[in-house]
Amino acid sequence: MTNAARYLRAVCRPLNHARSKPAWPPLVARLSTAPTKNAVLVKTAKMHKVILGAVAFGTGAAILLGAESPSFISAESLTDSSPLIAAPITPPGLPVAADTSYPPTMTIYDKELPVVTVFGDDTSDLGKPRLVILGSGWGATSLLKDLEPNGYYTVVISPTNYFLFTPLLPEATTGTVEARSLLESIRYICRTPRAHFCEAEAYDVHLKEKVVEVVGEDGRHFLVPYDRLVVAVGAQNNTLGVPGVQEHTRFLKTIADARRLRVELMTNFELAALPTTSELERKRLLSFVIAGGGPTGVEYASELYDFLHEDLINYFPDILEKDVSVTIIQSADHILNTFSMAISAIAEEKLRKHKINVITNARVTEVDSAAITYRKKNVPKGEPNTFVLPFGICLWSTGIGMRDFTRRLVGKLQQQENTRALEVDSRLKLKGDPNIYAIGDCATIENPRMLEIVKERFQKAGMDRLTYQQFQSVIGSIVDQYPQTAVHLSKLRSLFDTYDIDKNNVLDLDEITKLLDDVDKKLTSLPATAQVARQQGAYLARKFNSLAFTPSDLRPVVEQTLPPFYYKHLGNFSYIGEKTAVIDLGEGRTGGGFGVFLLWRGAYLARQVSMRTRVLLAFDWIKSKLFGRDVSRF
Amino acid sequence: MTNAARYLRAVCRPLNHARSKPAWPPLVARLSTAPTKNAVLVKTAKMHKVILGAVAFGTGAAILLGAESPSFISAESLTDSSPLIAAPITPPGLPVAADTSYPPTMTIYDKELPVVTVFGDDTSDLGKPRLVILGSGWGATSLLKDLEPNGYYTVVISPTNYFLFTPLLPEATTGTVEARSLLESIRYICRTPRAHFCEAEAYDVHLKEKVVEVVGEDGRHFLVPYDRLVVAVGAQNNTLGVPGVQEHTRFLKTIADARRLRVELMTNFELAALPTTSELERKRLLSFVIAGGGPTGVEYASELYDFLHEDLINYFPDILEKDVSVTIIQSADHILNTFSMAISAIAEEKLRKHKINVITNARVTEVDSAAITYRKKNVPKGEPNTFVLPFGICLWSTGIGMRDFTRRLVGKLQQQENTRALEVDSRLKLKGDPNIYAIGDCATIENPRMLEIVKERFQKAGMDRLTYQQFQSVIGSIVDQYPQTAVHLSKLRSLFDTYDIDKNNVLDLDEITKLLDDVDKKLTSLPATAQVARQQGAYLARKFNSLAFTPSDLRPVVEQTLPPFYYKHLGNFSYIGEKTAVIDLGEGRTGGGFGVFLLWRGAYLARQVSMRTRVLLAFDWIKSKLFGRDVSRF
Ligand SMILES: Cc1cc2nc3c(=O)[nH]c(=O)nc-3n(C[C@H](O)[C@H](O)[C@H](O)COP(=O)(O)OP(=O)(O)OC[C@H]3O[C@@H](n4cnc5c(N)ncnc54)[C@H](O)[C@@H]3O)c2cc1C
Ligand SMILES: Cc1cc2nc3c(=O)[nH]c(=O)nc-3n(C[C@H](O)[C@H](O)[C@H](O)COP(=O)(O)OP(=O)(O)OC[C@H]3O[C@@H](n4cnc5c(N)ncnc54)[C@H](O)[C@@H]3O)c2cc1C
Repeated sequence: MTNAARYLRAVCRPLNHARSKPAWPPLVARLSTAPTKNAVLVKTAKMHKVILGAVAFGTGAAILLGAESPSFISAESLTDSSPLIAAPITPPGLPVAADTSYPPTMTIYDKELPVVTVFGDDTSDLGKPRLVILGSGWGATSLLKDLEPNGYYTVVISPTNYFLFTPLLPEATTGTVEARSLLESIRYICRTPRAHFCEAEAYDVHLKEKVVEVVGEDGRHFLVPYDRLVVAVGAQNNTLGVPGVQEHTRFLKTIADARRLRVELMTNFELAALPTTSELERKRLLSFVIAGGGPTGVEYASELYDFLHEDLINYFPDILEKDVSVTIIQSADHILNTFSMAISAIAEEKLRKHKINVITNARVTEVDSAAITYRKKNVPKGEPNTFVLPFGICLWSTGIGMRDFTRRLVGKLQQQENTRALEVDSRLKLKGDPNIYAIGDCATIENPRMLEIVKERFQKAGMDRLTYQQFQSVIGSIVDQYPQTAVHLSKLRSLFDTYDIDKNNVLDLDEITKLLDDVDKKLTSLPATAQVARQQGAYLARKFNSLAFTPSDLRPVVEQTLPPFYYKHLGNFSYIGEKTAVIDLGEGRTGGGFGVFLLWRGAYLARQVSMRTRVLLAFDWIKSKLFGRDVSRF
Repeated sequence: MTNAARYLRAVCRPLNHARSKPAWPPLVARLSTAPTKNAVLVKTAKMHKVILGAVAFGTGAAILLGAESPSFISAESLTDSSPLIAAPITPPGLPVAADTSYPPTMTIYDKELPVVTVFGDDTSDLGKPRLVILGSGWGATSLLKDLEPNGYYTVVISPTNYFLFTPLLPEATTGTVEARSLLESIRYICRTPRAHFCEAEAYDVHLKEKVVEVVGEDGRHFLVPYDRLVVAVGAQNNTLGVPGVQEHTRFLKTIADARRLRVELMTNFELAALPTTSELERKRLLSFVIAGGGPTGVEYASELYDFLHEDLINYFPDILEKDVSVTIIQSADHILNTFSMAISAIAEEKLRKHKINVITNARVTEVDSAAITYRKKNVPKGEPNTFVLPFGICLWSTGIGMRDFTRRLVGKLQQQENTRALEVDSRLKLKGDPNIYAIGDCATIENPRMLEIVKERFQKAGMDRLTYQQFQSVIGSIVDQYPQTAVHLSKLRSLFDTYDIDKNNVLDLDEITKLLDDVDKKLTSLPATAQVARQQGAYLARKFNSLAFTPSDLRPVVEQTLPPFYYKHLGNFSYIGEKTAVIDLGEGRTGGGFGVFLLWRGAYLARQVSMRTRVLLAFDWIKSKLFGRDVSRF
């Protein structure tokens, strides 16, 4: 290990990886802290005292004294022959206390919107800096899991009230695991850092006012003020502008998607088994087409293969089997192209063995309700290059795009130039606003233009060459600032030697230019994976924990002294069917087979955000092994 | 025990209750008979040999020789630039063999419909009597579980491809158990008796042609011939003609209903927790109104209570709790009125303790999207008697009505006079057609008019009085024929003494008339419960097993020698919240408490149709005990 790299790791590790205390209380603790009935009563009473007492002493006292047990309200208080009164928008309904440092409403673009400062009735953190987190996916959840209580008044806003363990979504489409085993209630996750959850969608951010505009499912807009805002809203499916995709294909991004695919799969099998279904129709119903040869597409195809050969074959007429087809259409010349070539080859061979049709170098041009049209590239002249493939189910999995909310935010900041994601600096701060952070699929870390930086320094210093020692220090400071460059700059000695073409033991300007130009080209943005989002969330949690009690005027300075984000690649998995998985650990280290399959399941068990989902998943795997997957159409 | 009763039990028991061999192979057997990969191949090969060999030797041989492993078909054979050809209705698609004793099509009401004789590719039972079973609920499943293979070519037709364990549906609305744990694939259940499943709806029966008209989800009609037909299609929800019920209330009959209620419950809690929701709206969103005070209504209310106090209270602002209300509206003057009064009283007290509002003597007159209108009976003049109750969710559970299919069948038979269900004799044969049986919720056993029967016999014999011995023999033969009368005629001596008013040790015509009149009045139809449906299914299975190899011309005679159906009441349960259940064992024997709760769960575990659902249920209960119910909105 070189000095620079060693330095780098020393600096970054503690922030990113050393999790000295378990981030999650063990099961026993969780159980014993679950309030018993009496504890609930005590807690209820205490809350009532604090909140209601302040607002309406009379009512509060009545409840305190009169409430013998938690109870429903009586029907009489509800029964009423007058029409329901339309709910007032201002003042907001639920909070019984309010943070008086904010006005009750604000006028945004001519609309007067309520300002909501208090969520729920636990007001113990009111007055602390307001940390607002948008999203409840990988990034947000990882942040919440590592965030310590007491530092902030934390509000989590997301249209889904659960965290979804996306990597196993393909398994939920066939019932290898149950959909619910992939979910953990975000309200549960919010308990440890004492965060408040609000099921709503972030609609816009008003930077000057430092408020997020939020819209609930009932369509009402309101404003939530922040001191620090974390955007972790993920991304949406990308249709690549192909006509018919939105209407006729299925995505696999949400838990509802997985459920729908499972139901439709069984529907198609039952329809195909009907005696009135013709052979052609049956072939169509049982034709599963997957647009996109990334891990999601490959895993879905492999799950279909397993389901058919382990379960469906026992329940459906054998004759159906002849009619099932699974096709992957990939635009690149091989599948799994974010993995190394070796992995692609293993996967392609496995798929071929499973008679899954892999069509590469093909671009989908149109989708209608029952068929997909694609065009093959590089077809010799005179031969047909356009094909129509009937399908029963078409899964569309060709990458991600920006959400409307993200697009709105990008539109507000001149500094944002990227059209695919929010650009952040190496400390995950949004370029253009010092109070906002963005993590996960909706964010991308800007890459330094190293050439420019170094040239500038050279000019300033009036230098035109570097000795090895100078080279070491310059590169060290770059890596320091942009940890993502480390992987390309770690072998300093051999770099120096390679680019020192005239072997004079110094790098002159031309040589340095060549070196940096090459590195610039190699710098890609981080992949949109759970792993990245999770590490970014954990990074922010540690940062926020450190900054919790820093006065706001000192914050920018202190923050700058904390190390930037460093991504550690722990390996990409893909399941390829028949109890085989592949792994790409980066730097050419790959693996595949049953051992990797076990590793894959083990890693996913370890990565669960709660003991509950861990137990459920393990049970699901045992269950589907023992009893097979359920073929009920539900 | 009197002689008659003893006789009765001796005759009926073996048929209904003595299940000498376990109806279901134990887990180990199930696992070891689950085909391994190779077994599948062997089976596949064998099937191909039998069927395809007969139809197209060439293709069959090619598959046998060429198929190295089960495989999907290639994309090329699917890829086609011509539009999909519309599927021909005749001949049907799937069967590769056909029973040539039937014509390929029949003309019914001017429509030519295909006749489907073969389902799937297992043709080993072709040529045997055709047993067609409509439905996959309690009745049908119980029949299938006890039916032996080899006797019939059995076809099961139902729009749901699973059996649903209805008694625990209320638990699935809150997540105490998961929806899927209540389902068992009917294709799995069909394997033991070697029955063929077809996911479609029975539309009509053409009695003369002995065919069922069936419609698949694709809307295509076809005909399925039968020798014996079992109608077990259950019943549908009864709206009592109240306007708005169909549109605005929820039912709890299917698994989709339970899932929908669960999702809507969480939706309403999340909406109520939004800061923009006014107090009045919150109260409405959290007002759960249940029309109907039967076990389903009471269990749903109790599940809501448990969920709120065991789980929701930990995740939602305490302030919400004040706004939750649960109301049961019951038209009779007490709830659970199919149970004994003692049970009603226990249940009402428990509900009162839980602050569940029970409104009795009230009739719902109208439902709109957010409120239910009801009228109280017996209200003193001048006081208001009509009330409007806003609701967030309204569950409608006021009894059952006839399905369209059942109504069509009733319309075809003069002998059918009942407007609520298909009338069957005490051997469960449909009145008016000797080839059709009906069981479960869609059927009702005709009650004898005992007075008429006995009077007729008296006239024939020229008698006008009965000694005790004569009385014994007359009653014995009645009980023999109509087992449902046994419960009212078992204590012969005391009956005789009671009605022998002049104490002359004979019953004269007047005294007998009085006695039989009283018994006639006491004879009610069996309740629409799973217990009845299950016993009826088991009864038919034993009968069909006995008759399997009886020539068809002897069948009516032999059948008449087999004993009629006898219902043995094993007790009704209802869960009433806080780990308490009540049981009504009939004849005044009742119980309630935590012990009954354990008994209840134990009984339901024992009643599972497969080891799979048994394990799943047990796991669900442990899970919700350990981790609480999930509050994810999914
Ligand atoms: C099928 C599938 C399989 C995958 N497999 C893997 C894998 O094996 N390994 C791996 O590393 N990665 C995998 N990924 C990628 C991984 O899921 C994503 O990279 C990761 O979820 C990104 O995390 P995130 O927090 O940025 O976004 P998400 O996890 O997508 O979370 C976004 C959150 O924001 C919420 N939200 C959306 N709109 C708004 C709004 N307007 N306001 C507030 N909240 C909003 C959403 O409800 C959600 O809670 C997979 C993805 C899919 C779909
Ligand atoms: C919420 C709830 C709780 C209950 N709790 C209890 C309890 O605790 N104890 C108890 O004993 N009973 C209970 N019951 C009653 C019990 O479920 C019914 O009595 C029982 O299901 C009747 O059995 P069945 O076979 O007649 O009908 P079902 O079980 O309803 O089955 C009918 C079948 O027919 C199918 N079908 C419908 N239409 C057609 C058609 N046109 N053609 C072919 N098939 C068709 C359906 O898909 C279904 O598979 C409960 C019912 C409900 C809804």
